[in-house]
Amino acid sequence: MPEPIQWEIETNTLQLLDQTRLPVRMVNLTCRTHIDVCRAIKRLSVRGAPAIGIAAAYGVSLAAFHAGLETDEPAQRNQMILHAIRKLSETRPTAMNLFWALNQMKEVLSDHKDAPSDELASLLLRKAYQIHEDDRHRCEQIGEHGVELLHDRYRILTHCNAGVLATGGIGTALAPIYVGRQRGMIFHLFVDETRPLLQGSRLTAWELTQAGIDVTLISDNTAAYAIRKKNIQCVILGADRITTHGDVANKIGTYNLAILAKEHAIPFYVAAPLSTFDPTIASGDDIPIEQHDEVALTESFGKRMAPLRVKTFVPAFDVTPHRYITAIITEKGILRPPFRDAIARVRADCDGEFG
Amino acid sequence: MPEPIQWEIETNTLQLLDQTRLPVRMVNLTCRTHIDVCRAIKRLSVRGAPAIGIAAAYGVSLAAFHAGLETDEPAQRNQMILHAIRKLSETRPTAMNLFWALNQMKEVLSDHKDAPSDELASLLLRKAYQIHEDDRHRCEQIGEHGVELLHDRYRILTHCNAGVLATGGIGTALAPIYVGRQRGMIFHLFVDETRPLLQGSRLTAWELTQAGIDVTLISDNTAAYAIRKKNIQCVILGADRITTHGDVANKIGTYNLAILAKEHAIPFYVAAPLSTFDPTIASGDDIPIEQHDEVALTESFGKRMAPLRVKTFVPAFDVTPHRYITAIITEKGILRPPFRDAIARVRADCDGEFG
Repeated sequence: MPEPIQWEIETNTLQLLDQTRLPVRMVNLTCRTHIDVCRAIKRLSVRGAPAIGIAAAYGVSLAAFHAGLETDEPAQRNQMILHAIRKLSETRPTAMNLFWALNQMKEVLSDHKDAPSDELASLLLRKAYQIHEDDRHRCEQIGEHGVELLHDRYRILTHCNAGVLATGGIGTALAPIYVGRQRGMIFHLFVDETRPLLQGSRLTAWELTQAGIDVTLISDNTAAYAIRKKNIQCVILGADRITTHGDVANKIGTYNLAILAKEHAIPFYVAAPLSTFDPTIASGDDIPIEQHDEVALTESFGKRMAPLRVKTFVPAFDVTPHRYITAIITEKGILRPPFRDAIARVRADCDGEFG
Repeated sequence: MPEPIQWEIETNTLQLLDQTRLPVRMVNLTCRTHIDVCRAIKRLSVRGAPAIGIAAAYGVSLAAFHAGLETDEPAQRNQMILHAIRKLSETRPTAMNLFWALNQMKEVLSDHKDAPSDELASLLLRKAYQIHEDDRHRCEQIGEHGVELLHDRYRILTHCNAGVLATGGIGTALAPIYVGRQRGMIFHLFVDETRPLLQGSRLTAWELTQAGIDVTLISDNTAAYAIRKKNIQCVILGADRITTHGDVANKIGTYNLAILAKEHAIPFYVAAPLSTFDPTIASGDDIPIEQHDEVALTESFGKRMAPLRVKTFVPAFDVTPHRYITAIITEKGILRPPFRDAIARVRADCDGEFG
């Protein structure tokens, strides 16, 4: 399995597998400052809600290290770190885990605001490590819970990438697949391309074939026909943000698939850690939705594929209303409708742990 | 408006606008033999069910011209023409109009099987002209009937290309748009890319912007979100084959959109000439569905976009069951459910004209 996020102790740098180069090349990107991390998140070298949170946390510890070199004055140093946190939080407005991870880093800063710079930097790095390790553990737990929903020989449709490349561990949506595989279960995965950036074909198809799992690639608009003709038995995918009522913001195309799953009467599963849940928003309509640059459509992969005067609508995410969702797989178990109650319950059980 | 299919009298050649080069270049492809026409159809230089039928008809007249040069013996000459018809019919197994047009050419041949070669070639060319002219007329009629279903300022989603580039006239699905426009109506068209060959972005967005119509390009998987967020009021698209029960084979992704339209309670219109109706098949499951080469997915846009060991499922068409279809717009009027009765009625009215 690839390691998409690695802290290199010898050089105090963050090594990110540059996902824009996959599936053709495995190249690491070296981040020496939080600005490098911001750039890596913005250009999608690192993506996937949990992975963005982890990378941003390491970004804060890079900022603390450099701030300590620049000034001995704690107030000024802390301002520099807070500025870096703000910059990192502005990279991806839809991803909830990003704000969640940065808030944890902010708490460490606030608890040790007068600490010597090397001690503070070391505490922040330790926290980033912990966020990373916790995510690895959460992925395992999501896998353990999620595999209970699957049966041997299942034919499963997934969208975008919610696997190893999107997390600190074995993924969210793909975690149940990997856990099932470890137990000797066999699955057939159908992966859609996920236009416009093709995370399905470039990333998911790649990591699943690397793991020796049977994969069939389809175009996004083949989904309905594939569900019918290839007897796909469930849809499973990740989330970037989930409201208190269970509405799900996720990669554009998720809402399409939710409707297709409903029409074909197959379950539609969302897998995400609790850090994806936004305690401040009830309706999905209140989630800010990023837009991709229009060249993602008009100049696909370096070639002009649309006339010059055309308008475009290129949302990076959409919102799936909770009524389409069969279950949400979290590290604390499987949530079922009514999600409002299930989410409130799990939040009460884990008081302080998330949100 | 571009002229995608033109017979050049001076040179006895068929000029096809090479649609594989759009939207970047307008280049004509010169067909001197029926083999050139077969190749042009297979490589999608000419596509769209009605346009394929027209090009194939001209292909037969090219074959007749060359057969007459090669032999004076009618039986041998006729064999050569029949061989060309068979070759042309094998180019696209899903397109009904292709077989319909070739059958008309075959009838001319059978009615004049002892005619001198130059007379036969001239009769076949005249028939091809007539098929072309009739299609132009049919498109106008489809437009006249279809515009009754639209209102001024309508926001309309279309898929693939069923416009000028797909027919001998102003299109099938796009004909009502063009007729409405001539009457001063304003429409906002949403066009999906139509993976894997991007007929939506390369062709439909191009021809609509050429005609000065407001176009917004979306990726296929943005359709559901666009219907909801942009208040799209209907879906309108073409067909490659329609069964006696009203099941519709059309470009892959049509079935997706039919389900999305149903879920959002907006009408789903199919526009096609009666030559698209197959009198021999009741169920859409019996329609042969072509597969694209897998490189359409794995090497998108000339670049490797998927891992080497991945499997693919790349149907060029899908089948939409008749229960999803609000109305079928034909040159003889608008057919409404139950389609079995409506189709039988229109067939009885036009006895001999089609099917």
